[in-house]
Amino acid sequence: MGEIQYQPLRSLIYVDCVKEEYRHKLQHWLYYYHVPESMAKFEPWVTKYAFYNALPMPPKGEQFGTYRMQLTEHYWMVNPMSEESLVNSLNEYFPLDAMKWQGTIPDDDAEGFMADGEAARSSGGGNGCPPFIMAFLPIFWEEDLKGKGRTMQDGPNYRWQFLISYPDGHKEDGDAWMREEVLPAFAKMPQVTRIMTSKVKKEINNCHMDRCVEMWFDGPADWYECAVNLAKDIARPDWAVEEEFPYVKSRFQFASLFLADMPTSDNLRQYRGYLPMR
Amino acid sequence: MGEIQYQPLRSLIYVDCVKEEYRHKLQHWLYYYHVPESMAKFEPWVTKYAFYNALPMPPKGEQFGTYRMQLTEHYWMVNPMSEESLVNSLNEYFPLDAMKWQGTIPDDDAEGFMADGEAARSSGGGNGCPPFIMAFLPIFWEEDLKGKGRTMQDGPNYRWQFLISYPDGHKEDGDAWMREEVLPAFAKMPQVTRIMTSKVKKEINNCHMDRCVEMWFDGPADWYECAVNLAKDIARPDWAVEEEFPYVKSRFQFASLFLADMPTSDNLRQYRGYLPMR
Amino acid sequence: MGEIQYQPLRSLIYVDCVKEEYRHKLQHWLYYYHVPESMAKFEPWVTKYAFYNALPMPPKGEQFGTYRMQLTEHYWMVNPMSEESLVNSLNEYFPLDAMKWQGTIPDDDAEGFMADGEAARSSGGGNGCPPFIMAFLPIFWEEDLKGKGRTMQDGPNYRWQFLISYPDGHKEDGDAWMREEVLPAFAKMPQVTRIMTSKVKKEINNCHMDRCVEMWFDGPADWYECAVNLAKDIARPDWAVEEEFPYVKSRFQFASLFLADMPTSDNLRQYRGYLPMR
Amino acid sequence: MGEIQYQPLRSLIYVDCVKEEYRHKLQHWLYYYHVPESMAKFEPWVTKYAFYNALPMPPKGEQFGTYRMQLTEHYWMVNPMSEESLVNSLNEYFPLDAMKWQGTIPDDDAEGFMADGEAARSSGGGNGCPPFIMAFLPIFWEEDLKGKGRTMQDGPNYRWQFLISYPDGHKEDGDAWMREEVLPAFAKMPQVTRIMTSKVKKEINNCHMDRCVEMWFDGPADWYECAVNLAKDIARPDWAVEEEFPYVKSRFQFASLFLADMPTSDNLRQYRGYLPMR
Amino acid sequence: MGEIQYQPLRSLIYVDCVKEEYRHKLQHWLYYYHVPESMAKFEPWVTKYAFYNALPMPPKGEQFGTYRMQLTEHYWMVNPMSEESLVNSLNEYFPLDAMKWQGTIPDDDAEGFMADGEAARSSGGGNGCPPFIMAFLPIFWEEDLKGKGRTMQDGPNYRWQFLISYPDGHKEDGDAWMREEVLPAFAKMPQVTRIMTSKVKKEINNCHMDRCVEMWFDGPADWYECAVNLAKDIARPDWAVEEEFPYVKSRFQFASLFLADMPTSDNLRQYRGYLPMR
Amino acid sequence: MGEIQYQPLRSLIYVDCVKEEYRHKLQHWLYYYHVPESMAKFEPWVTKYAFYNALPMPPKGEQFGTYRMQLTEHYWMVNPMSEESLVNSLNEYFPLDAMKWQGTIPDDDAEGFMADGEAARSSGGGNGCPPFIMAFLPIFWEEDLKGKGRTMQDGPNYRWQFLISYPDGHKEDGDAWMREEVLPAFAKMPQVTRIMTSKVKKEINNCHMDRCVEMWFDGPADWYECAVNLAKDIARPDWAVEEEFPYVKSRFQFASLFLADMPTSDNLRQYRGYLPMR
Repeated sequence: MGEIQYQPLRSLIYVDCVKEEYRHKLQHWLYYYHVPESMAKFEPWVTKYAFYNALPMPPKGEQFGTYRMQLTEHYWMVNPMSEESLVNSLNEYFPLDAMKWQGTIPDDDAEGFMADGEAARSSGGGNGCPPFIMAFLPIFWEEDLKGKGRTMQDGPNYRWQFLISYPDGHKEDGDAWMREEVLPAFAKMPQVTRIMTSKVKKEINNCHMDRCVEMWFDGPADWYECAVNLAKDIARPDWAVEEEFPYVKSRFQFASLFLADMPTSDNLRQYRGYLPMR
Repeated sequence: MGEIQYQPLRSLIYVDCVKEEYRHKLQHWLYYYHVPESMAKFEPWVTKYAFYNALPMPPKGEQFGTYRMQLTEHYWMVNPMSEESLVNSLNEYFPLDAMKWQGTIPDDDAEGFMADGEAARSSGGGNGCPPFIMAFLPIFWEEDLKGKGRTMQDGPNYRWQFLISYPDGHKEDGDAWMREEVLPAFAKMPQVTRIMTSKVKKEINNCHMDRCVEMWFDGPADWYECAVNLAKDIARPDWAVEEEFPYVKSRFQFASLFLADMPTSDNLRQYRGYLPMR
Repeated sequence: MGEIQYQPLRSLIYVDCVKEEYRHKLQHWLYYYHVPESMAKFEPWVTKYAFYNALPMPPKGEQFGTYRMQLTEHYWMVNPMSEESLVNSLNEYFPLDAMKWQGTIPDDDAEGFMADGEAARSSGGGNGCPPFIMAFLPIFWEEDLKGKGRTMQDGPNYRWQFLISYPDGHKEDGDAWMREEVLPAFAKMPQVTRIMTSKVKKEINNCHMDRCVEMWFDGPADWYECAVNLAKDIARPDWAVEEEFPYVKSRFQFASLFLADMPTSDNLRQYRGYLPMR
Repeated sequence: MGEIQYQPLRSLIYVDCVKEEYRHKLQHWLYYYHVPESMAKFEPWVTKYAFYNALPMPPKGEQFGTYRMQLTEHYWMVNPMSEESLVNSLNEYFPLDAMKWQGTIPDDDAEGFMADGEAARSSGGGNGCPPFIMAFLPIFWEEDLKGKGRTMQDGPNYRWQFLISYPDGHKEDGDAWMREEVLPAFAKMPQVTRIMTSKVKKEINNCHMDRCVEMWFDGPADWYECAVNLAKDIARPDWAVEEEFPYVKSRFQFASLFLADMPTSDNLRQYRGYLPMR
Repeated sequence: MGEIQYQPLRSLIYVDCVKEEYRHKLQHWLYYYHVPESMAKFEPWVTKYAFYNALPMPPKGEQFGTYRMQLTEHYWMVNPMSEESLVNSLNEYFPLDAMKWQGTIPDDDAEGFMADGEAARSSGGGNGCPPFIMAFLPIFWEEDLKGKGRTMQDGPNYRWQFLISYPDGHKEDGDAWMREEVLPAFAKMPQVTRIMTSKVKKEINNCHMDRCVEMWFDGPADWYECAVNLAKDIARPDWAVEEEFPYVKSRFQFASLFLADMPTSDNLRQYRGYLPMR
Repeated sequence: MGEIQYQPLRSLIYVDCVKEEYRHKLQHWLYYYHVPESMAKFEPWVTKYAFYNALPMPPKGEQFGTYRMQLTEHYWMVNPMSEESLVNSLNEYFPLDAMKWQGTIPDDDAEGFMADGEAARSSGGGNGCPPFIMAFLPIFWEEDLKGKGRTMQDGPNYRWQFLISYPDGHKEDGDAWMREEVLPAFAKMPQVTRIMTSKVKKEINNCHMDRCVEMWFDGPADWYECAVNLAKDIARPDWAVEEEFPYVKSRFQFASLFLADMPTSDNLRQYRGYLPMR
């Protein structure tokens, strides 16, 4: 094995909650087991590890592959997918249920298989469920397309963050369409206050997603006007697989998170154990 | 004014979010403005100040006056409603919108009135909106009716916490009905894992609510079975004002919160400023 | 000895720095030695322990007994001057110099006397130096005379906090003069944005100071206009010992601190050891 | 039930580790399970919750009932043994092993009994094992018998803290012997740098121990010289049950902890979850 | 854009306060707005972000370009001036006043221009005011000229840190003069306890300052003896623009900060929001 | 000097306590003086700095060079032994006693020599004492030989970590013996639950130790069975210098630490000053 390089990376994990029956159980697993185990594993080479609760899915959110639990964000100093970094004294505890609650393993999958961290992060896709999403990005947005002067004094933001996977054979023209047609169309809409985008660093973990975009609005009504009504004017590409914008398969090729500005828990700095209400 | 007494109190504020358009704005006001202002005001005599995000409203939740934003919980060392404690060097910043978002002031109320903390906490009720709910309880539950051996190793809990206000003229028989009919009926249901209850300490702030109950379930399906299906067998009292259980006016006489075990933010110990996602 | 009572108290220690030669040395003693020793001693019954750096003395500040180092503020749950609380396993380290730097012991006092905490807090007065100032107040201001609606959104404040000791034999008429003539005169000045006052709880430690007042301004120019220019119209009482307002002996009978809003260090929550710049 | 009173108390729990086979397991239970569960239960009315690792047992330590794991110290605002405070939403997780490791239940006790917190704290005594020790003290030492001027600048201390239970029928003359013969004898020994003592507040939980004493030394050699060699001159009382000083039954009537000055973990302020070494 | 490299850098921002009327306002802007905004922006790639309050300007301090507010210090993992790092989702809030208070924009400059972070950090210089100072240094001092054995046990230090810009055309001989004449002269003075120096990394942001020096003294009297009295013996170079040492234009070519050892706020670790005094 | 490179390193310092007379004194020096001084020195380029108390030495531990105080662990971003990093504004305070307590300087060494940090870290070896041990490792274990699926849910671990130095002239065959005979033999023992190993990065500081191994057991009895009883079957190599396994000179060529999973103090995140028990 070689020397460890400094390779700053930001990763985004989209965590779904496929039934309300599971939300409090998934939260318990995340905060009781997973946060301290994760920090023990990577604290010396991670600089930020934060959870952002998903806002409730807006109308028509299904069409956009809306994830309903949270965004898990890391800033890494070294590539956590390198061969060296996979040697850890303690593995993460991933009960099969934790993947069912997130929807990357079918609800009726037989017990008997205990997914560890690596298995969990490669679940979905081949079993009829959408693949586990962990997308690596540069630590800075690559392109700043609208609203660069915005400050916190301009008020809170309703953030729509999405990942798109172009169909096989259309990775290049798909991305050209996104950058030359889709994003400029949104940039012209007055309800959109901010647009930033980066390509996914697929070389890190062969993520199926190709590009990440973040757009900000005043609230869900403005989002609906833009993403549902006005986006109808964005022409359907030849390679489209769905009738409606964004024209790709929800949850498999397009995943959305609706977020407020603030992290729910900046774990490295705020976590102090799992302390239930009395 | 007299000497300040030690009077340990727990208070519960039920925070609603009346439209999804408001959720991220209400969160911003709560964390950006209200948390640091509140801590500056009461940190020397408050021992816990926590926010618990409301779980999404389950089916039939409207019937039970479900609040959709959060529970705000304080543990006080001195009575914060005493005359002495109302003298503060800095008042809290309460824009009118913050009360509209919570639903104690009508959405179309004309601007021109800036509610301060005291005004905010007495809003609602006379304007067609449900009154602001701040209920004081003893710091320990008064009655432990079911499940007292439960530990964290028994798994996560789906907590249903509710407050009830009996109709005028029925404060005594209403409470007798609750304690002798309603709670024993729930205690018999196998889906209910835990029941605790206390009377509201109305002498502190003349809160309109009379009693607080917390019941735990495995999840919303069990709750539905109990509170919607099985509760049909609980006889409708004479003084009932609604057809269905709980037989009192939703949001005005009955308010529910569905909660997971863990606080979203234990503010006195975890707050470190409002730091938005990059 | 009796049972310990809950007796919430706020105490104010006015810390001077009598020469610039001493400022960094006094800071070193305060943060290196005194903060951790103090927290070890009283952390279980103190709820706030904060330092507020003094703003530089404004012109004519000498006339008002301006203290030049900091305000040390405690919120106590029990009376720290009770007989019981004086038994501590470890005493505080008070080198004689620490009292010389603060000006309660003459600069040329011979070495050979090591003041402990109790000795330090009773130094001054009989040796030509102003007495050490530790004034106990109720935890809430007793009277709120102007500006009670002010919030943090109204902007930062230039706070003038002072303590006054009326001459012997004039404790009552002195205080009547303060409350009936001085404070109303200031309340009428438009530059004064806030006035709050409390009597010193002299029964706790026989403090020589009688009353504490806090007035807020936009800045030192407004303070000067009020306290130096406009205050000339406040009639000199019979018992006055100085020609100019406030008519009592600077530093011995009148002590001022000019403060910004924010603590420099909220020690119980922010202290993490003495870590010098590299 | 009545109103909750402010009743400041310090409690000392002596935790033994009866075999080295158990030390890391007991530590795991304490930090992984017990600390967060305890904080969740009492954080609003406890002001300090600290663990102090026991120093290794010195030669002849068996004679003095030396405990080998840690001191657990709480500072309470309310009496945790009151009837009201025993109602808690979640019970503490106490596997039977945790009591065997501490030695209040025999190592070969049959499984099948799950001790909860209250059961754990009343274990021992009737089963051939020494009783669980939880002794309540006033928050301040009642008597300061030697070394009251000592500061942290005098250097680190080797602390011998012990609890003694006088034989039945000799509670009064036993304590007179302690205060009039034993403690004065130690106070005269030059190796003893500090002596403080308080009576145990037996009214809180009927603790079998009667008095707590803390004496400081430079190190274990000085302790041995005093407690083993010089203490031979302390006359054996009539009611003695052992041949050697301290003349009472080790671990049952006399329990010692050897401690350094610093807490190993000040849990309320330092705990941030159980994060194992990578 | 290229890959982000690891480039450890320390930066020093010298913050002045040009009138006492502004000190509390500048402090409010720094702590209320700027600290949380800055941390949100760079927390994942900054390892230290600290404020050090300036000690009061000593006599003759004007001659040495003394800054009167604070030193702002960052340790960076990546170059914050790289093109990539300038893309940020939220810009910093820099009211024009914040630059006037610091003196890089004239006090009477017309309103109507809102400086953002980048504009603020390039203000001054062309408008008659001294340029904004942000100097990048290696994370370790390059040269250790005196006092390398000094420890914290040697007592507190009065630190004089200065930056010098040699006149155009004299960058090389200016620096030779500093290193071969000035610093050796100071190294010989017994009052100087410590000297360290580094060249400014001008390639990062084209800072006008060329070299940073830190010298330590016991206090301002010793500094005065050295920098004012003894420095008279340092020959005036040909390219001097002033009569007195340091022979360059105060505040434009020479800037000083007088500092104690300890940071006032180590923001990444100690900031917990803006909580004013009650 | 050159540019600072990112070079992630983990270092292990084995701290002994050679007499019980010294334990509390060594702890005092470590926590009172050394932790804050160290953090001040390296906080900007260290990501973890933790202390792990040594478990008591098991029977036969002398044969394995058991260290009795603690493991000090750092994770570095830059090589702390580079020439550049040796320039520090403040040196560490290392009284000669601190090295005697750890056993790298003879107990009867004459006073008069004050070791600084660099001197301390090169003490021992030439004076009859074992050399100070600071071994640098890659941040990830290089080889994972047994138990890679283990999680925290598998229960607490009794960790045996050791460093071995092969005799001169046998560095290669010694290591081959370790990897091909010793570790496989342990891997076959059912009591061993986990084995990981890395070569020491001797190029950093020329450490005398060659390899680090960590093996986990259920407790000391299992360790004894493996390392004392079963290891007798491991053939004695030609170059052996001792009769018993591990066949090299205890403390000079073989050093062991017995550890539980959890750090005693994760200093960068948990240290808040030295606060003694009241």
